[in-house]
Amino acid sequence: MTLHEIAPRTGIAFGLDAGQILRVIDPRGVQVSDLLAFAAEDVREVISAGRTFDYEETIRLTTGNVIWSNRSNPMLEIIEDTVGCHDFLLTPCSEATFRHFYPTEAVHRGCFGNLAEALAPYGVEPDAIPVAFNIFMNVPVDGKTGRIEVLPPVSKAGDFVRLQAKRDLIIGLTACSAGASNGGSFKPIHFCIES
Amino acid sequence: MTLHEIAPRTGIAFGLDAGQILRVIDPRGVQVSDLLAFAAEDVREVISAGRTFDYEETIRLTTGNVIWSNRSNPMLEIIEDTVGCHDFLLTPCSEATFRHFYPTEAVHRGCFGNLAEALAPYGVEPDAIPVAFNIFMNVPVDGKTGRIEVLPPVSKAGDFVRLQAKRDLIIGLTACSAGASNGGSFKPIHFCIES
Repeated sequence: MTLHEIAPRTGIAFGLDAGQILRVIDPRGVQVSDLLAFAAEDVREVISAGRTFDYEETIRLTTGNVIWSNRSNPMLEIIEDTVGCHDFLLTPCSEATFRHFYPTEAVHRGCFGNLAEALAPYGVEPDAIPVAFNIFMNVPVDGKTGRIEVLPPVSKAGDFVRLQAKRDLIIGLTACSAGASNGGSFKPIHFCIES
Repeated sequence: MTLHEIAPRTGIAFGLDAGQILRVIDPRGVQVSDLLAFAAEDVREVISAGRTFDYEETIRLTTGNVIWSNRSNPMLEIIEDTVGCHDFLLTPCSEATFRHFYPTEAVHRGCFGNLAEALAPYGVEPDAIPVAFNIFMNVPVDGKTGRIEVLPPVSKAGDFVRLQAKRDLIIGLTACSAGASNGGSFKPIHFCIES
């Protein structure tokens, strides 16, 4: 079982076969990893926050929850989660979000640009990148007003999530590029595939 | 200004030019209308719940809020809203959601099927249908646990929302087909375009 490192502010794509388990690790703590999953046989089928919220009846996914596709098929199941605080509301950070939220900083292509480049060889167009499952991202919601905030993750060094593929998938995965998501410092993400 | 009726459990698509105002009316009360908007010049650009939550910093949209696209452009602005309770978390009801939530009832193609048929002439594929802005839909979120419920709308007969197009759009609009969304009865939706 090989441990892979995603360098700070980069992303990667790879295949994950049905039954395999993807372990995503926060090696230093307080870092976010945006995850996408597409059906390997047809990348027009992709994880859907809206379908998942509907079937799981929650916006807070953790151990036991399934991530569903836009065609209402199970894509991934969370089988272990040492944190229990992730986001499935927000789209990946991008050049446009950098200009909006960090107007005085250098523009970065963000997780969106990193995912678009990594997924292009699999036939995924940038417009087809949906809301990502943002592992370790801390986005509290005020149930009464609907207001959201982006706070530093509560993950500590070594925390991880294990997700089992329910079918053959193409995975996109990042080490997040947005300061507000990770408490202001850019760190790597580790992952491994358990067969 | 012509008043149009969307019959119960059906949907429609039409163009809305930049600056025009779409008024969506609940004529009998306690009914939901799923709204989609695509850029007329390129339907790969579409409203995005994730981008909208990010820029508007809320999941509860009402007067003054803008609905953004997957390319981070403003698509529609809510300029008047007599209800203030809508949903932007859930995907349109579909054959699969009917089988899941109403296993003893006849399967209906739902808002998803109605939107897919209405939008096909504009080049929109079913897989490209995202989370809709579900006007009048009442989906409370428990901020602590993340649990969601689908409750009857709080809209009363004659309540409406007015949305101004920020660019030339293709609109998809339904009178919702799911019993849980509308308190168990299927009703029409009215709309008009104010130039």
